[in-house]
Amino acid sequence: MPPPDADAFLRVERRKGAYALVVLCREPVNTMNLSFWQQLTAVLDELEADPAMRGIIFCSGLRRDVFTAGNDINELYAPLTSHERYREFWLVSNRFLARLYTSPLVTVAAIRGACPAGGCCLSMCCDYRVMTESGSIGLNEVALGISVPKMWAGLMMRLIGTGPAEKLLQFAVMLQPGEAKELGLIDDVASKEGLMAAAEQAMRQMLKSPDFSRADTKSKLRGDFAAEWARYAETEVDGAWELLSSGPVKAQLAGVLERLSGGKKKGDPQSRL
Amino acid sequence: MPPPDADAFLRVERRKGAYALVVLCREPVNTMNLSFWQQLTAVLDELEADPAMRGIIFCSGLRRDVFTAGNDINELYAPLTSHERYREFWLVSNRFLARLYTSPLVTVAAIRGACPAGGCCLSMCCDYRVMTESGSIGLNEVALGISVPKMWAGLMMRLIGTGPAEKLLQFAVMLQPGEAKELGLIDDVASKEGLMAAAEQAMRQMLKSPDFSRADTKSKLRGDFAAEWARYAETEVDGAWELLSSGPVKAQLAGVLERLSGGKKKGDPQSRL
Amino acid sequence: MPPPDADAFLRVERRKGAYALVVLCREPVNTMNLSFWQQLTAVLDELEADPAMRGIIFCSGLRRDVFTAGNDINELYAPLTSHERYREFWLVSNRFLARLYTSPLVTVAAIRGACPAGGCCLSMCCDYRVMTESGSIGLNEVALGISVPKMWAGLMMRLIGTGPAEKLLQFAVMLQPGEAKELGLIDDVASKEGLMAAAEQAMRQMLKSPDFSRADTKSKLRGDFAAEWARYAETEVDGAWELLSSGPVKAQLAGVLERLSGGKKKGDPQSRL
Repeated sequence: MPPPDADAFLRVERRKGAYALVVLCREPVNTMNLSFWQQLTAVLDELEADPAMRGIIFCSGLRRDVFTAGNDINELYAPLTSHERYREFWLVSNRFLARLYTSPLVTVAAIRGACPAGGCCLSMCCDYRVMTESGSIGLNEVALGISVPKMWAGLMMRLIGTGPAEKLLQFAVMLQPGEAKELGLIDDVASKEGLMAAAEQAMRQMLKSPDFSRADTKSKLRGDFAAEWARYAETEVDGAWELLSSGPVKAQLAGVLERLSGGKKKGDPQSRL
Repeated sequence: MPPPDADAFLRVERRKGAYALVVLCREPVNTMNLSFWQQLTAVLDELEADPAMRGIIFCSGLRRDVFTAGNDINELYAPLTSHERYREFWLVSNRFLARLYTSPLVTVAAIRGACPAGGCCLSMCCDYRVMTESGSIGLNEVALGISVPKMWAGLMMRLIGTGPAEKLLQFAVMLQPGEAKELGLIDDVASKEGLMAAAEQAMRQMLKSPDFSRADTKSKLRGDFAAEWARYAETEVDGAWELLSSGPVKAQLAGVLERLSGGKKKGDPQSRL
Repeated sequence: MPPPDADAFLRVERRKGAYALVVLCREPVNTMNLSFWQQLTAVLDELEADPAMRGIIFCSGLRRDVFTAGNDINELYAPLTSHERYREFWLVSNRFLARLYTSPLVTVAAIRGACPAGGCCLSMCCDYRVMTESGSIGLNEVALGISVPKMWAGLMMRLIGTGPAEKLLQFAVMLQPGEAKELGLIDDVASKEGLMAAAEQAMRQMLKSPDFSRADTKSKLRGDFAAEWARYAETEVDGAWELLSSGPVKAQLAGVLERLSGGKKKGDPQSRL
């Protein structure tokens, strides 16, 4: 298999059965920067516009067992970015997520390994989540000194209920796959070898539903929330930038960056957002 | 027991203990047409106005094990009805359901056998659901090429949570009684012989609560949703008629009607809406 | 340990680790009157203003196994109070609860024994609930002929889901600790001897999250609901007083008071609101 284009973080593989794999491959841990989210948007544009495509499976093409480590700290650490760039980053990423949540395509996340923060959010926007037996999943922003974005929290509350979500979010809990399945955060657990087969089997099962009525029902179920999400991204961006520019948060994120670039904790995916 | 009046689809049996059975008997599968919903409304009027009545148990009086097969396709297939008639059908049925959901009476669904679509919705509007060991329950509209009405979906989301409901609805899942109980879609499973005894026992237990505070609490819990439902029925009716009048949906429903009137699938309750 | 001041219903014990115990001690069953809620408000003011304090554990200092028996009937029985006093009672208590629900402190309820109505509501406003193996918990207002306050019901719906909450509330169900844990109404069950150790262990675990991001996330998750609650207390107070002043409710509450002051049922905590 040829290596992807140096600037391309995604690889699209069309499969028989009218669906595509979207393989996330930004070594070493798929941190999501502005370009990553822009490429996700472009791929969703392309696949939704293709009348032969009915579904997408997101998966990791990394060497290590990481789905994605979440947002790139370089996009959040104020001294390395700007209000303007942060605004674009936040709007592009959240508009993508809100749109994925209501995509007329059937969407599956095949999660190999670690799945914190932004990776967990991308997964929650899909219709179905299957995860390997080892790994962990959750929105762990609080542990890094940053708050969970309101609509990301709202999404988890919809998926597993307000009470269970509140406990996980306030205390930055990362769940093991078995716990995540029990709470309804994921739908199935598979062996590492069986992950893609399980994802493709679920896809084929879900594609038995007629597209029009399925997509229209999905839009009815999720449309109001997604519209609020897209609007709210605009509302929250200035306040979020103010927080990111404050002394304590800058100090906190400087520490995270130092850990990531430095010693033995380098590449620990749970240390990112 | 005398056969019901040829035009009456419902039979009311008053029981000791201040409640009544409302027996649904439109052979062969209790398809719900305009008249069926009008009769349900009249019976609810009558029982709510009767100071001696404190509760209702809905059950099936059919020969086969079907609670109801859901809405009558003749009311949905555009060539057989009209915009005007469809409007009346949709408003009468949804206003009945929204009102049942907040009825001051204690309401129980005793579900013998198949309970798709409209029958599932009627059951979800009750305070308690008990079902026989064989049968299935769910909102399977998507499988027939029609979308799940927004407030019906919202009702299931309230009952079992948004995440679980989304999976069932998008993929038209009909649950077995054990699964339905585990998810909270029904409250109890009984043998076919024990169904009515279980329903009546639950009714007697629930009637231990004083009527005024129970009904006032029910109104507080469900009133906002029911008011939105009644309003939304009016909002959605024109768009729904436009869809029902479109080529693809007409073709889809023509196929359903042909299957129902034709061969071996005749009377399969899961083929109806 | 010295007995508390005769007029003080609460005792505050600061602990190593930056949290405090708030011990509820109004013998015999911690009925919550206006002064009780005012003292809770003052203690919350004090602890939130203390930069050394990061958490609160609420527990009972009573001789018998009762967390609190809920609101004092003397505040609800119209002949013993007035519209003006009831208004103050209702606003003080509900503003306290709404504020506790969004307190930047980590909050734990350590529930020894009976926990009906107002005690259940106070517990539900905390971040974590641990309960002894014997006891019961729930909002049992309906059994006493009074309806469940709308936002109290809404709080339980958030915590355990709308469907499960509706069944408990309409039928005044008091849950055993095991059932309560299964539904998510409490988080853990402990022996009577192990209760405080379990509460303190949970507190220490939760205090590992950085305060700022944890509190900001809590505010995002609960702020809208709490703001609506504080507003709604004002909206509902006149209608509630009208009901409390009506013949049937006065008769009902007179009966409760007679039972409490009279024979063998005296002090049964489940007989209070």
